Amino acid sequence: MYHLTALVTLLAIAFYFFTIMNVSRSRSKTGVKVPAISGHPDFERAFRIQANTLEWMPIVLPALWLFAIYIGDAIAAGIGAVWIIGRVVYFIGYSKAAAKRGPGFMIQGIAAIALWAGAIGAVVLRLV
Amino acid sequence: MYHLTALVTLLAIAFYFFTIMNVSRSRSKTGVKVPAISGHPDFERAFRIQANTLEWMPIVLPALWLFAIYIGDAIAAGIGAVWIIGRVVYFIGYSKAAAKRGPGFMIQGIAAIALWAGAIGAVVLRLV
Amino acid sequence: MYHLTALVTLLAIAFYFFTIMNVSRSRSKTGVKVPAISGHPDFERAFRIQANTLEWMPIVLPALWLFAIYIGDAIAAGIGAVWIIGRVVYFIGYSKAAAKRGPGFMIQGIAAIALWAGAIGAVVLRLV
Repeated sequence: MYHLTALVTLLAIAFYFFTIMNVSRSRSKTGVKVPAISGHPDFERAFRIQANTLEWMPIVLPALWLFAIYIGDAIAAGIGAVWIIGRVVYFIGYSKAAAKRGPGFMIQGIAAIALWAGAIGAVVLRLV
Repeated sequence: MYHLTALVTLLAIAFYFFTIMNVSRSRSKTGVKVPAISGHPDFERAFRIQANTLEWMPIVLPALWLFAIYIGDAIAAGIGAVWIIGRVVYFIGYSKAAAKRGPGFMIQGIAAIALWAGAIGAVVLRLV
Repeated sequence: MYHLTALVTLLAIAFYFFTIMNVSRSRSKTGVKVPAISGHPDFERAFRIQANTLEWMPIVLPALWLFAIYIGDAIAAGIGAVWIIGRVVYFIGYSKAAAKRGPGFMIQGIAAIALWAGAIGAVVLRLV
C-alpha cells in the first residue's frame, strides 16, 4: 500500500484547491467578473498561479505514483512534499510580484523532474 | 476490482469531452477564431465552462480513486455520479447566464469535497 | 505489471512538458511578459498548443490506464504512442499556422477516443 503517497496526493490537491479559492477571492477584491480572465494585474497573477499549478498537475501526479510503485512509497511522498513546499513558495512570491515567482518555481520544477526521472529510470530498468 | 469507479471515471471524461466539443461549436456560432479565447460573451461562457471542468478534474479523479480504494467502489462511484450531475446542471445554467452557474457548481463542489474528505480521513486512519 | 503503459505515460508527460517549455521560449521571442497570455499571434499559438495538450491529458491518461488494466498493456501503450505522435504532428503544424493544426489533432483525437471506447466497452462487459 502507498499510504504516504496517497496522503501527499490529497495534500497536493488541497493546496491546488486553495489556489482556485484564491482566484475567487481575487475576483471580489479586484472586481474582475466572470467569465473575464483579465482586467487587473493582481487578478491576473492570482489566475496565473492557479493556471500554472493546474498545468503541472498532470506531470506531478502520474510521475509521483509511478515513482511510488517502481521505487518506493516513502521517498515518492518525500519528493512530493517538496513539490508542495515549492508550490507554496511560488504562491507567496508570485502573489507579491511576477518577478518573485522564480525560487518557488525552481523548487517545484526540480521535485517534479526528480519524480519523472526516477520513474522513467526504474521503468526502463524493468523493460531491458 | 473497481468496475463502477472505472465506469464513472469514463463517464466523467465523456462529459468533459462534451464541454470541449461545445467550445468548438461555440467558435462557429460566435465567430471567435482560434487561437483567440475571448471576443464574444457566449463564447467566453462556453470556454469558461470547459476550463472550469478541466480545473476540477485533477481534484475529482484522484480523490475518487483514493476514496474507492480506501473506502469502497460503489460509494465512490455514487458520489462521482453526483459530481457528474452537478457538472451537467452547471453546464446548463452557465450556458444561459453567468449568474445561473451557482447551483450546479455547489452540487459538484460538495461531491468533490466529500470524495476528498472521505479519502484523506481513511488514509490518515491507516497511518495512525 | 504495466511497464509499457508506464513508459508511454512518462513519454506523454515529457512531450507535454516540452510544450510548456515552448511557451516560455515563445515569451522571450515575442516579448509577451507574464502574466499576460495574449499580445502576439505566435505566442498565442504556442500557448494554445500547450493549453490544448493540457486539456486532453485528463481524457487520455485515465482512458489509457483503464484500457491497459481492462484490455492489455501492450495494446494500450501502442495506442498511447499513436496519441503522442498525433500531438507531435499537431505541435509542428500549429506552430506554423492555426490552419495547419488539423491532421495532428485528428490523429490524437482518434487515439484518445479508441482508448476511451475500448475501456468503457471492457468495463461494461465486466458489469453486465
